[in-house]
Amino acid sequence: MIDTNVNLLVVSAHAADFVWRSGGTMAKYIKNGANVSLVILSYGVRGESNDLWKQEGQTMESVKKARHAEVEQALMQLNIKNVEFWDLEDYKLEFTREHMERMVKKIREVRPHYIITHGPKDAFNPDHENVSKFVWEASVLSISNGVKIEGYPTAKQARIFGFEPHQTEICDFKPDVIIDITETYQQKEAAMQCFKAQKHLIAYYADRAKMRGNHARRCSGNSEYKYAESFSRFYPYVGGELV
Amino acid sequence: MIDTNVNLLVVSAHAADFVWRSGGTMAKYIKNGANVSLVILSYGVRGESNDLWKQEGQTMESVKKARHAEVEQALMQLNIKNVEFWDLEDYKLEFTREHMERMVKKIREVRPHYIITHGPKDAFNPDHENVSKFVWEASVLSISNGVKIEGYPTAKQARIFGFEPHQTEICDFKPDVIIDITETYQQKEAAMQCFKAQKHLIAYYADRAKMRGNHARRCSGNSEYKYAESFSRFYPYVGGELV
Amino acid sequence: MIDTNVNLLVVSAHAADFVWRSGGTMAKYIKNGANVSLVILSYGVRGESNDLWKQEGQTMESVKKARHAEVEQALMQLNIKNVEFWDLEDYKLEFTREHMERMVKKIREVRPHYIITHGPKDAFNPDHENVSKFVWEASVLSISNGVKIEGYPTAKQARIFGFEPHQTEICDFKPDVIIDITETYQQKEAAMQCFKAQKHLIAYYADRAKMRGNHARRCSGNSEYKYAESFSRFYPYVGGELV
Amino acid sequence: MIDTNVNLLVVSAHAADFVWRSGGTMAKYIKNGANVSLVILSYGVRGESNDLWKQEGQTMESVKKARHAEVEQALMQLNIKNVEFWDLEDYKLEFTREHMERMVKKIREVRPHYIITHGPKDAFNPDHENVSKFVWEASVLSISNGVKIEGYPTAKQARIFGFEPHQTEICDFKPDVIIDITETYQQKEAAMQCFKAQKHLIAYYADRAKMRGNHARRCSGNSEYKYAESFSRFYPYVGGELV
Amino acid sequence: MIDTNVNLLVVSAHAADFVWRSGGTMAKYIKNGANVSLVILSYGVRGESNDLWKQEGQTMESVKKARHAEVEQALMQLNIKNVEFWDLEDYKLEFTREHMERMVKKIREVRPHYIITHGPKDAFNPDHENVSKFVWEASVLSISNGVKIEGYPTAKQARIFGFEPHQTEICDFKPDVIIDITETYQQKEAAMQCFKAQKHLIAYYADRAKMRGNHARRCSGNSEYKYAESFSRFYPYVGGELV
Amino acid sequence: MIDTNVNLLVVSAHAADFVWRSGGTMAKYIKNGANVSLVILSYGVRGESNDLWKQEGQTMESVKKARHAEVEQALMQLNIKNVEFWDLEDYKLEFTREHMERMVKKIREVRPHYIITHGPKDAFNPDHENVSKFVWEASVLSISNGVKIEGYPTAKQARIFGFEPHQTEICDFKPDVIIDITETYQQKEAAMQCFKAQKHLIAYYADRAKMRGNHARRCSGNSEYKYAESFSRFYPYVGGELV
Repeated sequence: MIDTNVNLLVVSAHAADFVWRSGGTMAKYIKNGANVSLVILSYGVRGESNDLWKQEGQTMESVKKARHAEVEQALMQLNIKNVEFWDLEDYKLEFTREHMERMVKKIREVRPHYIITHGPKDAFNPDHENVSKFVWEASVLSISNGVKIEGYPTAKQARIFGFEPHQTEICDFKPDVIIDITETYQQKEAAMQCFKAQKHLIAYYADRAKMRGNHARRCSGNSEYKYAESFSRFYPYVGGELV
Repeated sequence: MIDTNVNLLVVSAHAADFVWRSGGTMAKYIKNGANVSLVILSYGVRGESNDLWKQEGQTMESVKKARHAEVEQALMQLNIKNVEFWDLEDYKLEFTREHMERMVKKIREVRPHYIITHGPKDAFNPDHENVSKFVWEASVLSISNGVKIEGYPTAKQARIFGFEPHQTEICDFKPDVIIDITETYQQKEAAMQCFKAQKHLIAYYADRAKMRGNHARRCSGNSEYKYAESFSRFYPYVGGELV
Repeated sequence: MIDTNVNLLVVSAHAADFVWRSGGTMAKYIKNGANVSLVILSYGVRGESNDLWKQEGQTMESVKKARHAEVEQALMQLNIKNVEFWDLEDYKLEFTREHMERMVKKIREVRPHYIITHGPKDAFNPDHENVSKFVWEASVLSISNGVKIEGYPTAKQARIFGFEPHQTEICDFKPDVIIDITETYQQKEAAMQCFKAQKHLIAYYADRAKMRGNHARRCSGNSEYKYAESFSRFYPYVGGELV
Repeated sequence: MIDTNVNLLVVSAHAADFVWRSGGTMAKYIKNGANVSLVILSYGVRGESNDLWKQEGQTMESVKKARHAEVEQALMQLNIKNVEFWDLEDYKLEFTREHMERMVKKIREVRPHYIITHGPKDAFNPDHENVSKFVWEASVLSISNGVKIEGYPTAKQARIFGFEPHQTEICDFKPDVIIDITETYQQKEAAMQCFKAQKHLIAYYADRAKMRGNHARRCSGNSEYKYAESFSRFYPYVGGELV
Repeated sequence: MIDTNVNLLVVSAHAADFVWRSGGTMAKYIKNGANVSLVILSYGVRGESNDLWKQEGQTMESVKKARHAEVEQALMQLNIKNVEFWDLEDYKLEFTREHMERMVKKIREVRPHYIITHGPKDAFNPDHENVSKFVWEASVLSISNGVKIEGYPTAKQARIFGFEPHQTEICDFKPDVIIDITETYQQKEAAMQCFKAQKHLIAYYADRAKMRGNHARRCSGNSEYKYAESFSRFYPYVGGELV
Repeated sequence: MIDTNVNLLVVSAHAADFVWRSGGTMAKYIKNGANVSLVILSYGVRGESNDLWKQEGQTMESVKKARHAEVEQALMQLNIKNVEFWDLEDYKLEFTREHMERMVKKIREVRPHYIITHGPKDAFNPDHENVSKFVWEASVLSISNGVKIEGYPTAKQARIFGFEPHQTEICDFKPDVIIDITETYQQKEAAMQCFKAQKHLIAYYADRAKMRGNHARRCSGNSEYKYAESFSRFYPYVGGELV
């Protein structure tokens, strides 16, 4: 059972990454009373809005506005209330000392037990790789007593997880944990539908959820798993019993 | 909390492998009411009794007897009741069709939720590698409906874990799960002390338990972990929530 | 364009492996006039007939018969004429010197430019691993002048490819080549439908074909690819130009 | 047969990298009518001109001039017409936003079907690693609709290949494709001879071409291959048939 | 026998890294008359002084002063005379062109036969990763004739070694060389004791030295090894005989 | 300096493997007074005599005889006196319990400080892989007190090295040690010339020796290395100082 005291922080490079890759898990944590925080670093205007740019007359601003509207709808479907838009320029996302301090503050504020963000390698997307490194570094700084920030006491070590990239195998992705999202899959699908211009992605990640559901059943022998999301781990599991 | 309905099966290539590598975890499961079964495939007379052979006048039989007595004492310390000695010849352990059927039966009888055995690679020990493959193959056959054995209905997929080898890094071992054994560490130490002729191993695995305790604290931020054992996974974790 | 002089040999551990994993590619080669040969090493009675065994009163013979009938239908859908059933016992498939000589003969008879079989690792299926090694070894022997078999002159080095395993990432599978099967996908689907008892696999591999189609489009920029199959390589590509 | 409509872009960190590593392939594409473009990012004055610096009285300018003259001769031998010298400072090559935009423009201008540049790891050369990342990132940006550059419409996904590094194994290089350069090897040798001060490299890469020729014969069974160059792939091969 | 003409350069990210990870080796080289130079890039005030910050009233300056005092004592125990404090800000350590030039000068001044620094991956410490890359890049520039620095003639290629990270397996660390430090272990322990606030690390690295001593005995059959330190290699061993 | 008390054991799958891959090293050890023993497991009649079989009228016996004569000449060139021919059938080499005991005896008789044999992976040669495993297993058994063989007291742990396979990269070979063979290269070349039917291999391994000589110079900065052989390690280096 998901504990209602659990804090989960998700950091998404572009506007929709968190939906395709962890929407079901986020919705499930929220549904079960946990505290879910989301940071969306960019709108993905340059790198992940190909379909919108195909429409005539688009500008940076109009695309950003369209993306913002889509995301707001998706957030509603998933019941995500706690969200920050950093509105950085993507392609390429690059991070300054100020961004680092801001992310350290965010982690210390949220005090996450779990962080989900991009995994270390993405053969098609340098932004995802940069975000992975950025969040990991911030997590290290956030737990160090010597990194003093007035008003932001040191956080505790979180368990950190990586999203599935789009083409897993050539990104060296291994599914270390597979999370059953059967109970919130409808919400995930509704959230995906908010990104109307990206029909092919909706079908792709619907199939992906079924595929991971199949893997979940096969690895566990539990036939009730229908839809699932998978993640890589940054650190070993530590606990009182085998899982 | 460890569930009292849980069935754990441990398969050990030689007489003492299970003590050094999973003694604390086994004792903990037993203490908490779970069902723990152990298969000891050989006494390790040829491969893991160097110290006994240094005493004059030893024979295969006398060494085997000495090993058996040591193991019985260790089992008592850990409260392990359910044990089978297959008494195979070690160095090298080799497996026939009959052994395979016997192991399939064992798995179907125990119906384990968790299996712990040797991991796939051991740069210093071919027996460990062979046992790893043998147990894995038996686990696959045990869950297949078409592998019919009268009186032994098909088992369910277990979660399979690999022991830490002696020199982890050159065996490509990664600690995927680290299990806190603080509450049963005294039992593990008492069990290790039963192998009197192997003083250097006792010290080695006592230090190892502390080392993994340190890692457990560092990866989790939980300072109560003092001693731990670590294992590799054969399959991804599947479940209802992040762990 | 596929050359009509091309010889393709596919070796399948169990009755249906070749359908799920290379049915579209085989049908395409046949449709384009190439020579396709198939060896089915076992009916998968013990290891890959879980659904059939759920029906009351089944015996080894009745399951084998059912599997044979299904395969014959699938072969018809794919237009595969040249097939050999070795009818070995599966779970576990094991190979003798006689099997090795038989496979060497088969390769020398077919003289394949391409061989497709199982890849080296399958975390859920020891038979697939054994077949991978067996076919690879036979391919090496088949091209050696000193391995004399009366009436079977030495073959030439083939290009060898590995099937996608069911759960790719934990089997260390990388898609080295992705083959467009849009023109024969309907045949593949019809062939898959012949395995009536395995509904979940039909859906799974239909989704998989779409997923690889998506990857094919993404890696190539060619939007006409709809369905695809992927394979790993045993050896580097060699040729006159970049591909 | 190499298609005369094919566009090939080669990006070389230092003045001579493209000669040692892809000179034969470039000459072959040109000879067969394809469009070959070359970017030489630096003259390698600081990092790859050890032999020139051994001569007394050299300055940055004199070395650069010598390197330029050598390269011009080599280009003539290979019939490369389309070349850009960016004249960046090497050791270490570092890239700004302006460089990134320039490379994106270059890719959009050339519209390459194939890009050849340095592979991701070089245990002896940080410049090669940086260039690999730089070109890969530029290739990603170049195909994104949202990365708007007036006059430079979006490119299509190219197939990207990595050069062989000098010591392949410790750079984790695998030869994914081996290209026969027998028909242009004489040109490559003549081009290598233009770098008079680097006798040891000329012999080294002549032997390397023979070694890859041997591998080409062994992997293909085609005894006509005498000289070859090998490359790694950034992405899987996608196409209509097995290659 | 260690040669008295040997020059060893150690580069430590934070104040105490060199003690835990190479203190015994450094003391041994000094004891045997070799020339040992040390660069301490930062005091680790922000990242590696957690225990000091637990004391009330600490400031950046007071922590730095405490760290400096501890290090001076440790240096005395190890007899290290030749040390430079760069006093950079840690967490995160970042390097400019000036730092690079300074490190190139240092290497050219010391002319090391051996360099020891951090290995390429540390799952818990971005500073260690950055230092590894920085030192490696500087070593490459230091041996290049074209990287002209007045008064600092080109160095020769050194053998480069990586420290053991704290949790070796998840940092992909392999012990390529294991160095017996039995004769100087007492000095190492005394040096570790200088870091009073870090009791848990002292115990941890004392156990680690014993563990590597055990590995040294097991890999060599030499029972005189009691304590050891291990390192990874950046390059293959080259020499006149097998080692 | 090579110690005259050193015992080196080389195990070669086929008749000529030891010449191409370690001939220079063996000659050097012999020249310097060390004790070198060689086991040739098979004549490679089936797997490595392609050129001989091209001559009309050859039989198993005539090829074996020709191979024997060639090897005898090569042994003379390298001054190898201590050799055993096991005359097993190759393609495929398979090992029984008797072979295992024989190899354990051999190791206990020779008491090698160094063992050189095939490395664990060879993408073109299953015999090489089997020999690698066989020798490694025998080495483990040879040092175990409990593996009693009358008249053959337990050996000490040797340092074990793997030959370079023919195509290194796709066999996952890394050169862990590179041994200068400049002083005995002429002998190696003379030994290679004894295998008259294999001209292409002579040229190939002559180039290879130069290539590794180039790497030796580059990794060490020592310009006197002209020819070299490289090997992988089975275990870490252990010793009193950095090498």
